[in-house]
Amino acid sequence: MEQPGDITFRTRKWVKPEDLNANGTLFGGSLLRWIDEEAAIYAIVQLGNRRAVTKYMSEIEFVASAVQGDIIEMGLTATAFGRTSLTMRAQVRNVITGELILSIDKIVFVNLGEDGQPTPHGYTEITYDRDRIPTPSSLRRPQQ
Amino acid sequence: MEQPGDITFRTRKWVKPEDLNANGTLFGGSLLRWIDEEAAIYAIVQLGNRRAVTKYMSEIEFVASAVQGDIIEMGLTATAFGRTSLTMRAQVRNVITGELILSIDKIVFVNLGEDGQPTPHGYTEITYDRDRIPTPSSLRRPQQ
Amino acid sequence: MEQPGDITFRTRKWVKPEDLNANGTLFGGSLLRWIDEEAAIYAIVQLGNRRAVTKYMSEIEFVASAVQGDIIEMGLTATAFGRTSLTMRAQVRNVITGELILSIDKIVFVNLGEDGQPTPHGYTEITYDRDRIPTPSSLRRPQQ
Amino acid sequence: MEQPGDITFRTRKWVKPEDLNANGTLFGGSLLRWIDEEAAIYAIVQLGNRRAVTKYMSEIEFVASAVQGDIIEMGLTATAFGRTSLTMRAQVRNVITGELILSIDKIVFVNLGEDGQPTPHGYTEITYDRDRIPTPSSLRRPQQ
Amino acid sequence: MEQPGDITFRTRKWVKPEDLNANGTLFGGSLLRWIDEEAAIYAIVQLGNRRAVTKYMSEIEFVASAVQGDIIEMGLTATAFGRTSLTMRAQVRNVITGELILSIDKIVFVNLGEDGQPTPHGYTEITYDRDRIPTPSSLRRPQQ
Amino acid sequence: MEQPGDITFRTRKWVKPEDLNANGTLFGGSLLRWIDEEAAIYAIVQLGNRRAVTKYMSEIEFVASAVQGDIIEMGLTATAFGRTSLTMRAQVRNVITGELILSIDKIVFVNLGEDGQPTPHGYTEITYDRDRIPTPSSLRRPQQ
Repeated sequence: MEQPGDITFRTRKWVKPEDLNANGTLFGGSLLRWIDEEAAIYAIVQLGNRRAVTKYMSEIEFVASAVQGDIIEMGLTATAFGRTSLTMRAQVRNVITGELILSIDKIVFVNLGEDGQPTPHGYTEITYDRDRIPTPSSLRRPQQ
Repeated sequence: MEQPGDITFRTRKWVKPEDLNANGTLFGGSLLRWIDEEAAIYAIVQLGNRRAVTKYMSEIEFVASAVQGDIIEMGLTATAFGRTSLTMRAQVRNVITGELILSIDKIVFVNLGEDGQPTPHGYTEITYDRDRIPTPSSLRRPQQ
Repeated sequence: MEQPGDITFRTRKWVKPEDLNANGTLFGGSLLRWIDEEAAIYAIVQLGNRRAVTKYMSEIEFVASAVQGDIIEMGLTATAFGRTSLTMRAQVRNVITGELILSIDKIVFVNLGEDGQPTPHGYTEITYDRDRIPTPSSLRRPQQ
Repeated sequence: MEQPGDITFRTRKWVKPEDLNANGTLFGGSLLRWIDEEAAIYAIVQLGNRRAVTKYMSEIEFVASAVQGDIIEMGLTATAFGRTSLTMRAQVRNVITGELILSIDKIVFVNLGEDGQPTPHGYTEITYDRDRIPTPSSLRRPQQ
Repeated sequence: MEQPGDITFRTRKWVKPEDLNANGTLFGGSLLRWIDEEAAIYAIVQLGNRRAVTKYMSEIEFVASAVQGDIIEMGLTATAFGRTSLTMRAQVRNVITGELILSIDKIVFVNLGEDGQPTPHGYTEITYDRDRIPTPSSLRRPQQ
Repeated sequence: MEQPGDITFRTRKWVKPEDLNANGTLFGGSLLRWIDEEAAIYAIVQLGNRRAVTKYMSEIEFVASAVQGDIIEMGLTATAFGRTSLTMRAQVRNVITGELILSIDKIVFVNLGEDGQPTPHGYTEITYDRDRIPTPSSLRRPQQ
C-alpha cells in the first residue's frame, strides 16, 4: 500500500523527435514542461482547486538523459502543506534504462482564489482516495 | 495488490484549448491520439520491444466528454497474448467528474522484427515487475 | 459527376517526423486524430451546425502504413442520416504507394443544440452544393 | 470535368484557438504555413519527386479573415512548368462565409536532384490522373 | 547606437525536425509562420495596440536554406507609418552559415479598433525606448 | 555598447492560448521550455558547438505572470566559463507590463564531444562578435 512520502510514478511519455536537442538526446526544456504539467495536475487534485499555479522550483540537476524511442515516467509526492501552498518532490526516470533522469526536491504551487490572490486551502495531508476532488466549488464546472 | 485483469490508471492529461472541438468539449481526435500513445507505451513495456505497432481497435463509443481544465486519466490492461500480438483493454475517465469517458474492449498491437514483419514475442502473461524491459536486444540502445 | 455513396478524397497530409511511431512508420494515433478532424469538418458542413461531435466509431483495422515523406489523403461520404445523427464511411490511402491504409465503416456524429443536448437536424440526404452551410443560425457568427 | 487552369479545392482546416492572433482572428502565419504545406504536396504529386522546395511567392494580400470554429479550404492549380520549376496559383476561402481569404498568383517550387541542386523534371503539363506519381525513382521508398 | 532604417535582429530559432520539408531542409511554411509572428510582436510594440493584424506581404524569394540544428535569427525595422498602418522590412539569416535566408521588403500591418475596423494609430516614427507600450488603453489588460 | 555582465534581451514570445494554465495565466512549463531553448541557442553560439546540453539550473522563483496576448522577452548573459561548461544568468520580463517574470541565477550547459562526453571548449570569455561561430569543425555541416 502507498505510504505518505512514497513517490507514485504515473504519467509516461515517449521521447519523440520534437523532444530532442541538437545532441540527439532528450531536450531539458521538454522535460521541464512535462514535469510542471504533471505537478499542476497533482496539485489540482490534492487542493481540489483548478487555480493552483507554479510558484517555486528548487535547483535541478540533469543526471542522465534519454534518446528517441525511450519511455520516461514521472513521479510526485506532496511533502508539505503551507497555509496557501503545497510543496511536492518530483522524480523522472527512464523506464528503458532504469536510470534516474532528475529529481527536484521542492516544487511549490500556490492556491489562488477567484481574485487571483493566494488563498488558504485548508488541507494538511495528502489524499490517496481522490475523494477531495469534487468538494470545492471551484472545481464544479459551470453549467454549459 | 494489482491483479491480472485490473486496469491500472496511469497517464493523466490536462484538457487544454487545443484539445477542444467547436462545441467547446474534448475533441475525440485528441483523445484517440492520447490512447494510442498510451497503448503503445504499455505494449512496448510488456513485449520488451520498441517495434510494437497498432493493428486493430474494436468499436468506440464516446459516453461522456470533458471541458477545458478537466483532468482525464487513462488505464490499460493486457487481456490476451497471441503469438505475435498483444491485446489490451482501455478506459479513459474524467478525474474531476468521476465519469467514464470511453472504453475500448480490444486494442491489438503486433510485435515486429527488424525486417518490419510480425515476429513471435514469446510471452504469455502480463509483467508487473517491469523486469522484462531490458531483456530483448531490440530494446538495447545503440552505443552513441 | 459525384454520386451518393462515392467517397470524395479531399484533405491531404504529409507524414512528418512527429507523426511516426518508434518503428519509424505512421503512428496510429496521428492518423486517428486526422480522421476525426476531417469527419468533424464533413459533419459540420453537412449538418450546417458547428455543434457536431463524435459519438461512435466502428472497428478499425490498420491495413497498411506510411513512412516519413509519404502523402496520405482522406475520404468521407455520408451513409445515413438519423434524426439527430449523421453516419459516415471513411477511407485513408497512401498517395505515393496507392495502398489503402484503413477504412472505417461507421463514424457517427451527433448534432447538438445550444444546450449541448442532441437535437434534430432535419436533413435526410447529402449536400454536394454546400448551399446548406449558411442556413442555420448556429453557423452565423456573432458580431464582433 | 476538371479543366486546366481550374483550381481544385482540397484540404480543409478547422480554425482552432492556436491559430488565432491577439485580435481573435485567423493568424496570418498559420495560414501561410498551411498554404506552403499544401503547395508542397501539390508539387510533389505533379513532379513525382519528394525533393520539391519553395523558391518564390508573389505578393500576398489578406482580403478577409476567419474566426475560431470557421472552416477554410485551400485550392491550387499549376500555371506554368519551367525546366526545373513548377508555378502554381493558390486560393484560400472561408467555407462558412463563402469569402475569399487570400489568393497568391505565383508560388514557385523547384525540383531538386539527390545532390540538392535544381534538376530538370521533364514535365510540361498538369496530371489529373496521378499516374505520374510512382514513376521517378526518387519517389520509390528505400527498402526498410 | 541604433539608427532609423537599421534592422535589429532579435528572436532566434533552432531548426528542429518538425521544421523540415521532405528534402531535409528548413520548410518555407515554418519560416513564414515565424516571420509573421515576429512582425506581429514588432507591430504591437510600435503601435501600442494588440489589435494589429497582417494586411500585406510583398514578394518573397527563398535565397538560402538551413538544416536541422542550425540557428536562424529574424530582424525587422519599420519603414513607413500610414494613417492606420505600419510597414516593416524583414530579414532572416542563418547564424551558423552567415547566409541571408530571405528578405521581405514590405510587411504591412493594420491597426484595428475595438470594432475590428482600421483606426488611426497617431504615430509617425519608430520608438526605440519602448515607452510607447503602456500608453494606449487597448494595451491595458482588463482586471482579472 | 554592450558590457560583459549585461543581459541582452533577444527572443520575444507572444503568449497564446496553448501557453496558459487552468488559471488563465502563463503556464510555468511553457516558460521553462522557452528559457531552456534560448539558453541552448546562446550556449551553442558562445561555445561554437552544437553539442551543448543543459546540466543544471539553480532555483527558480516565479515572481509575476502574464496573460494571453502579452509579449514576453528573454535575456541571457554568460557569467562563468568552466573547462567543459558555460554558466549563464537568465531573466524573463513582460514587455507589456514591464514586470520581471523570473530570473535564474545559474543555468549551466556542458560542452560535449562527438562521443557524448564532456570535453574542454577552450573559451574563457563572452563573444559579442559572433566570429566564434564558424570556427569549430563540430559546427560545420556535413555536405549534403
